[in-house]
Amino acid sequence: VLAIPVDAILDTIAYVLDRIREGAVLVDFGSTKEPVCRAVAAHPKRGRFVAAHPIAGTEHSGPRAAFASLLRRNVMILCERERSDVDAIDLIEVLCGDLEMPVHVMDPAEHDLHLAYVSHLSHISSFALGLTVLEKEKDETTIFHMAGSGFSSTARLAKSSPQMWAPIFGQNRRNISAALDHYIRMLQHFREIIDAGDDREATELMTRANEIRRILDRIDGA
Amino acid sequence: VLAIPVDAILDTIAYVLDRIREGAVLVDFGSTKEPVCRAVAAHPKRGRFVAAHPIAGTEHSGPRAAFASLLRRNVMILCERERSDVDAIDLIEVLCGDLEMPVHVMDPAEHDLHLAYVSHLSHISSFALGLTVLEKEKDETTIFHMAGSGFSSTARLAKSSPQMWAPIFGQNRRNISAALDHYIRMLQHFREIIDAGDDREATELMTRANEIRRILDRIDGA
Repeated sequence: VLAIPVDAILDTIAYVLDRIREGAVLVDFGSTKEPVCRAVAAHPKRGRFVAAHPIAGTEHSGPRAAFASLLRRNVMILCERERSDVDAIDLIEVLCGDLEMPVHVMDPAEHDLHLAYVSHLSHISSFALGLTVLEKEKDETTIFHMAGSGFSSTARLAKSSPQMWAPIFGQNRRNISAALDHYIRMLQHFREIIDAGDDREATELMTRANEIRRILDRIDGA
Repeated sequence: VLAIPVDAILDTIAYVLDRIREGAVLVDFGSTKEPVCRAVAAHPKRGRFVAAHPIAGTEHSGPRAAFASLLRRNVMILCERERSDVDAIDLIEVLCGDLEMPVHVMDPAEHDLHLAYVSHLSHISSFALGLTVLEKEKDETTIFHMAGSGFSSTARLAKSSPQMWAPIFGQNRRNISAALDHYIRMLQHFREIIDAGDDREATELMTRANEIRRILDRIDGA
C-alpha cells in the first residue's frame, strides 16, 4: 500500500512495481489519480496496480495519525478498474467489504476534478482563513478569547501537513485553480451584497447555501 | 435576556427597557455590540442594561437548538461595563461565575472589529464554500460520495440561519467588508502560487497557517 505524499508516489511507483513478487498487488491511496494512472499506463505490471482513494482522513498525517476505525464505512474510490487484473481488484474489494467501505468506480480525470471542489478547495479555504486571522490578530490572546467552535471547525484543516498538501496542489493545479476562481467570485459576490446592505439578497444567498445541510447530514450520519 | 437576531434587538431594546420593573436587569447576547450600545446610549435606564456576547453557539438556532451545557466554560464578553449599574454587572458576573464563564471586558468597536475576523468571516467562508460546491456539483450524489469529514467541518456553518446572519452582516458591514477583502486577497495569493507551481512558496504559506494549531488546540481543549 502506497500511503505517502502524492509526489513520493510518482517517484516510487515504478520502482516498487518492478520489484513486487509475482501475484502481489500494489495499491495507492493518493488524493490525485490522473498523474499516477498516467505514470503506470505503460508499465509491464500495470495489471498488478490498483488506483484507489479512500475518502477518509483527519488534519493529522503520518503513521502516528492512524487509528483503527479510520477507513471503516468510508467511501473507497477506484480508478481505471478495468486496467487492473481481476484478482487484484477482487483482493481490494474484499478488503473494502471487510471494512464496510462502499466502492465507487470513477474516471481519474473526473475524480481529480470533483476532488478539487469537495476536498482540495476546503483545505485552501481553511489555510487562507487561518492566515488571514493570524495576520490581523497579532495578539493570539484575542483570537483565543473571541473565537469559538465555529472558527475552530472552519479553520481546522489549516493544521494539515504542508508536505502532504503542496504536491497535491501541484498535481491538481488546473482543477484547483478553477475551483478557487469560482470560490473567489462567490466571496466577491457576498462582499458586494454586504457592502450594498442588501439584506434580502444576502438572505436569499444563505438560504441557497443551507441546501448543503442535506448532504452534510448524510456525510456526518454515514 | 434578549437572545434574538440583532435587528430584532435594536427594534425592541428601548421598548423593553421602558417597561422592565425597577431593579430588573436587561442583558443582550447579540453578535454585534456597537449598534446596541449606541441605541441605548441616551436611554434613561441605560444603567439597567448589560451589553454581553457569549462566545458559544452552533450552526443551529432558535429555542430548540439550546442545550444545558451551551454556555458552560465559554467566554463571556461584556462591553461598556462602566455604563451599567454596579448591581446589574454584579448579577451578570455571578451568573457567569456559576457557569464557569471567563469574563472579558472590551470596547464595543473593538469587539465588532475582531468578531468580523474570528466569527463573521468564518461564516461567510463557509456559506460561500457550500454555494460553490452546490453550483459545481449539480448531482448531489457526487458530493456525498466524494466529500469527507474535512468538507463537512469546513462547510458546517453554511447550515446557519440566514435570518440570524443577514442582520449581523448589515450591522457589522464595514468590518466584515474589510475582513472579506483581506481573505479574498489571501486566496488570490494562494491561487497565484498554485498556478505558478511554486511548491516551496506553497509549503512556506501552509507552514505559517499551521501556527493556528496552538490556538485551535486551546479552544478545543477549553
